[in-house]
Amino acid sequence: MEPVEQHASYGGRQDVWKHASAVLGCEMRFGVYLPEAALRGERCPVLYWLSGLTCTEQNFITKADAQRHAARHQLIVVAPDTSPRGDGVADDPAYDLGQGAGFYLDATQPPWSRHYRMQDYVAQELPALVEQHFPASEARGIAGHSMGGHGALVTALRHPGRYRSVSAFSPIVAPSQVPWGQKAFTAYLGDDRNAWREWDAVDLVATAKERLPLLVDQGTDDEFLQQHLRPELLRDACAAAGHPLTLRLQPGYDHSYYFIASFLGDHFAHHGTALRS
Amino acid sequence: MEPVEQHASYGGRQDVWKHASAVLGCEMRFGVYLPEAALRGERCPVLYWLSGLTCTEQNFITKADAQRHAARHQLIVVAPDTSPRGDGVADDPAYDLGQGAGFYLDATQPPWSRHYRMQDYVAQELPALVEQHFPASEARGIAGHSMGGHGALVTALRHPGRYRSVSAFSPIVAPSQVPWGQKAFTAYLGDDRNAWREWDAVDLVATAKERLPLLVDQGTDDEFLQQHLRPELLRDACAAAGHPLTLRLQPGYDHSYYFIASFLGDHFAHHGTALRS
Repeated sequence: MEPVEQHASYGGRQDVWKHASAVLGCEMRFGVYLPEAALRGERCPVLYWLSGLTCTEQNFITKADAQRHAARHQLIVVAPDTSPRGDGVADDPAYDLGQGAGFYLDATQPPWSRHYRMQDYVAQELPALVEQHFPASEARGIAGHSMGGHGALVTALRHPGRYRSVSAFSPIVAPSQVPWGQKAFTAYLGDDRNAWREWDAVDLVATAKERLPLLVDQGTDDEFLQQHLRPELLRDACAAAGHPLTLRLQPGYDHSYYFIASFLGDHFAHHGTALRS
Repeated sequence: MEPVEQHASYGGRQDVWKHASAVLGCEMRFGVYLPEAALRGERCPVLYWLSGLTCTEQNFITKADAQRHAARHQLIVVAPDTSPRGDGVADDPAYDLGQGAGFYLDATQPPWSRHYRMQDYVAQELPALVEQHFPASEARGIAGHSMGGHGALVTALRHPGRYRSVSAFSPIVAPSQVPWGQKAFTAYLGDDRNAWREWDAVDLVATAKERLPLLVDQGTDDEFLQQHLRPELLRDACAAAGHPLTLRLQPGYDHSYYFIASFLGDHFAHHGTALRS
């Protein structure tokens, strides 16, 4: 593991590290914010942030002012890339498949199954690495945006007991029912829709073993709302299953980081309360 | 004038507009944040932000979380581009001359004198446009980073009575004495060093007609500190002239937006107090 960037930030330090991922079979980069307490060696809870389509580890660390909130709650924040990367890694010319579009699942179909194991990476390999190299406690939260909102919900729902808190901005709540998800799932998982159910938050909520409360923010002027996001499907699934959900529709807000920044403080408060209690 | 982007942000709206600049002889873009009071039509003070080398109107509006502070103080924030732009505009392959490196001065030397009139643009044409199209009061503040910190200091010092507040991050305080400034001034203003004095904050402070207090933040781990920034020259000039200066050396901070974001709240408080009093 090797540092790529290190910047003082809000009394702590924003880093970018690169490492060889055994799970993904390529070099990966991730952002990690270390609050002042972590720099002193004190173990701190970790919030994982999963970004959306086309993003790298850079988007969240440069555009959300996450460091301010991380400093307030003294949380380590880890922001991985959104897919395996590199010349030997399968790709597609479209922005919504291949590199930059890993969908946080473990692909079963060639050519994707060789490298696209992002679920294993974000839920296992990366936390193990973080907990080894930084003063990270085992209190973990997870959050994300859009494809990364899907990733956060699905990762938490698939790992009962592993995360203390979860939240999402503008998540793809039902990938099996919307074009972005159907395209990616067909490529990565094949045509058998039964295999899709394990990677779909709306399906997973129905049978979840743990009822971890979900906090979801969604802008009403989001250009992807009707076609790809459809938060009402999550609302209905949570109501049917008795799964606790706080779904906030934010009038006038779109899909951008301007939206995320505006409400990120509430998400950090949600995670900070769960992770620091 | 035509809108390019509009995003809800912290209860207000972050816009990007484009317009034909008569002063610069090209199309220009600028960011403008309109706090909630401005969207309701209430006149608000305006803070102008001048960015550094290689930047466009995008850097500050996407990386600084300025909207949060603008919302708190209900200030309009205007972020222009850093030079004239376009195919017909003189340029240089280097990052520190030509497009992206206007230095906020009015060039007198060909080929630059045709379009490079950024001082006239930021001090006259742009405020007139802003005050015509948005509910802007005539209370103006100005701030900036690096080349834009130079721009903010020089613009305020050249226009006594025009700005109520000024501040800078990592400014080029004495362009006549450092390589970035010497290269740009030679190209834009020619070899006569007397002509440079009108565009150099350290020179202007000596004879300033107005003693507007300066707030300057500088990171001690800034990679450009010794060669290009040299805040001690401003400290000495202000001491000699009796010009009020708050110079804060921030241990461990570099030249990046991580530094700016960490202390921008203090600058907005400085401007908000002056502009809202």
